[in-house]
Amino acid sequence: MTIEVEQPSVELSKIAVSETHGEHSPYFAGWKAYDEDPYHESSNPSGVIQMGLAENQVSFDLLEEYLEHHPQEASWGKGASGFRENALFQDYHGLQSFRNAMASFMGQVRGERAKFNPDRVVLTAGATAANELLTFILANPGDALLVPTPYYPGFDRDLRWRTGVNIVPVHCDSSNNFQVTPKALDAAYSRAEAMNIKVKGLLITNPSNPLGATIQRSVLGDILDFVTRKNIHLVSDEIYSGSAFSSTEFVSIAEVLESRDYKDSERVHIVYSLSKDLGLPGFRVGTIYSYNDKVVTTARRMSSFTLISSQTQQLLASMLSDKSFTQNYIKTNRERLKKRYQAIIGGLRNAGIDCLEGNAGLFCWMNLSQLLEKPTRECELDLWNTILQEVKLNISPGSSCHCSEPGWFRVCFANMSEQTLEVALTRIHQFMEGRKTNGGNLNF
Amino acid sequence: MTIEVEQPSVELSKIAVSETHGEHSPYFAGWKAYDEDPYHESSNPSGVIQMGLAENQVSFDLLEEYLEHHPQEASWGKGASGFRENALFQDYHGLQSFRNAMASFMGQVRGERAKFNPDRVVLTAGATAANELLTFILANPGDALLVPTPYYPGFDRDLRWRTGVNIVPVHCDSSNNFQVTPKALDAAYSRAEAMNIKVKGLLITNPSNPLGATIQRSVLGDILDFVTRKNIHLVSDEIYSGSAFSSTEFVSIAEVLESRDYKDSERVHIVYSLSKDLGLPGFRVGTIYSYNDKVVTTARRMSSFTLISSQTQQLLASMLSDKSFTQNYIKTNRERLKKRYQAIIGGLRNAGIDCLEGNAGLFCWMNLSQLLEKPTRECELDLWNTILQEVKLNISPGSSCHCSEPGWFRVCFANMSEQTLEVALTRIHQFMEGRKTNGGNLNF
Repeated sequence: MTIEVEQPSVELSKIAVSETHGEHSPYFAGWKAYDEDPYHESSNPSGVIQMGLAENQVSFDLLEEYLEHHPQEASWGKGASGFRENALFQDYHGLQSFRNAMASFMGQVRGERAKFNPDRVVLTAGATAANELLTFILANPGDALLVPTPYYPGFDRDLRWRTGVNIVPVHCDSSNNFQVTPKALDAAYSRAEAMNIKVKGLLITNPSNPLGATIQRSVLGDILDFVTRKNIHLVSDEIYSGSAFSSTEFVSIAEVLESRDYKDSERVHIVYSLSKDLGLPGFRVGTIYSYNDKVVTTARRMSSFTLISSQTQQLLASMLSDKSFTQNYIKTNRERLKKRYQAIIGGLRNAGIDCLEGNAGLFCWMNLSQLLEKPTRECELDLWNTILQEVKLNISPGSSCHCSEPGWFRVCFANMSEQTLEVALTRIHQFMEGRKTNGGNLNF
Repeated sequence: MTIEVEQPSVELSKIAVSETHGEHSPYFAGWKAYDEDPYHESSNPSGVIQMGLAENQVSFDLLEEYLEHHPQEASWGKGASGFRENALFQDYHGLQSFRNAMASFMGQVRGERAKFNPDRVVLTAGATAANELLTFILANPGDALLVPTPYYPGFDRDLRWRTGVNIVPVHCDSSNNFQVTPKALDAAYSRAEAMNIKVKGLLITNPSNPLGATIQRSVLGDILDFVTRKNIHLVSDEIYSGSAFSSTEFVSIAEVLESRDYKDSERVHIVYSLSKDLGLPGFRVGTIYSYNDKVVTTARRMSSFTLISSQTQQLLASMLSDKSFTQNYIKTNRERLKKRYQAIIGGLRNAGIDCLEGNAGLFCWMNLSQLLEKPTRECELDLWNTILQEVKLNISPGSSCHCSEPGWFRVCFANMSEQTLEVALTRIHQFMEGRKTNGGNLNF
């Protein structure tokens, strides 16, 4: 008789078995609930409405119109000219024409108040990769980046998972509309020091996701002073810069640097992407713009792991080089987002709900703290679950964004039609009415 | 008077300042020499001919013909239908249609002797990213992967740079045509053990880059037995599988697993790409095919950092789903590569140079050890430099591939026209003649 000794199964790495990918957070759990029962106007009118996805669909018609009028830009046309060249092009510098167009578009989005040099544009397959890549370059495993709260839940994965870097939160609160203060920065830095963790940089998102608000010029000044004093890096993730409702309401860190004659600029790195402002997340176009030569060189080498299809670079080089198209797009997109924003905060106000005053982005920051029995994370998640299961809306709880005050939620409004937004607002209104008349018991 | 104390410049990470990116190796130095003085038939006939680039241009006309006859596949056509859907699609599973087409194409390339399940296909932006991603999943920083020599120089970057993983070479030599042996595997493993380094896997390339030869079925069996005995992973990089000159000359690890009823298959992971076999490196299409469920799930999550443009996925889904196209492409491409290979080894033989007997790939493995004064790396690099500077050919020295025997060189033949290949062969012939008549002194 042979006794078969079973071999232990082959081991995976610590990174592979860790939970830092973050997919078990309510942020992603809500997506799954939506996937299982998605709302549809006619075929599933009682399904879950997805308000947890920061996607911009309000200006798609403009892109489609462009393609219809420029079919040759979207294909290789008769004779397939250009195909050979593009199919082979894998230089990590990226197509010169595309880098020029990106640099120019970044200037346009900032009302030409800042200039961008195409030689400093490093291309990556999305901002997800850009943020990870910068973290690899700026910090060692065990070091930390400071990140003001509330922040985009994906950062827990992007900045930490494969890099081994920590996030130390900079706690902001509603007392000053969640704006970053020198005091909060110093407190976070001291906390890291006390834990014997080396802080290598500060990462801000401007306009903020999830707040839907821009950072004021004076605050940016304080932030620059802080990183200079501590001799650390500043990453400014500006992927929603073209989604500020008015060009003048957004101040890029690039403008502040320009006003300081680029003094100390080698510690500053901007992340940008076409996923939000142009609504093209599927095309995976991200970029790092660094004022530090060594970071540019290293990031470019590292971008070998995350290059953009040259087919896509070619199409977007043409589209973004068309100034009359981009001007009209940027302007119209801002107007439409503002209109959407006003519709949702108006609807919420009618239902008795306040939001943080916003001026940018694809979402609003909704305050339901009044509905919490107790101001705890547990009560917030209970409410979130009720809204998901009973009101059938997937929104993102503030705790998934590490917000230190329970009761705030991010609500996305640009990934659906106006009609669907109306349905969502009606549901919320009924929900609030129900709570009023039933003393908190739902009758929905 | 104010004394300005200059602040030390802001620090970068150890990864950023390390040299593991490998760009200073002769492998890349030769590319720069080519870039500065590229050969052109009429405008620069005495320039450097690039024979250091494993690019496949011999079957481009077939791709162009496909696009010409299927213009709708390469664009969104009139009315831009499908654009909206694709522009938004960023699910890390990838387009179902594309994963189906990839799985089917992988089977076709292997003469249908192995089946691939689309649910196990994980998409990445190129094989560069696929190999790095697997390393992150299989090994911890400080652990090692065994890699038989000579190997692709890029692995020094791909497997090591950001992961912190080591490569322990498995030394192979010309005595048995550089095939891997159980003895060489055991020796490498013991060497790692002696250095107190934990070996987590073995990575093979089959067909081999730089050898241009496939691994025999019996050797694959030995390799599987070895990784099972040691309870470690096996990564089989098969990006040149469609470039074997005949379908039957290539045995995939998938076939060996099938013949063993997939016993112990959870330690096996295949890397594939469309960069070589289809000649589309610019499109950045790589894939991991793992028999391990946990690796599939984790790799898919990790692929968020390296997704493929959905525009490109859509085009290739159509192209690869067209069976009559793929059948003809695979067959014709093999025939043309074989013809090219025969032309180059015939030409080299006329010049008095032998090559390893090859049956796959875009290069041959050339033996110039007879020309070395002494069998050292220094003499090999001197000869390489002479060939680059005087014969004006950029080839890759074996030492850049960690070959343990000096005097071998990888010579690429598919990234140029037949005419250019003729010019290169004439130059080599003259070089060898010059050495004969001048007792080693060049008179070129």
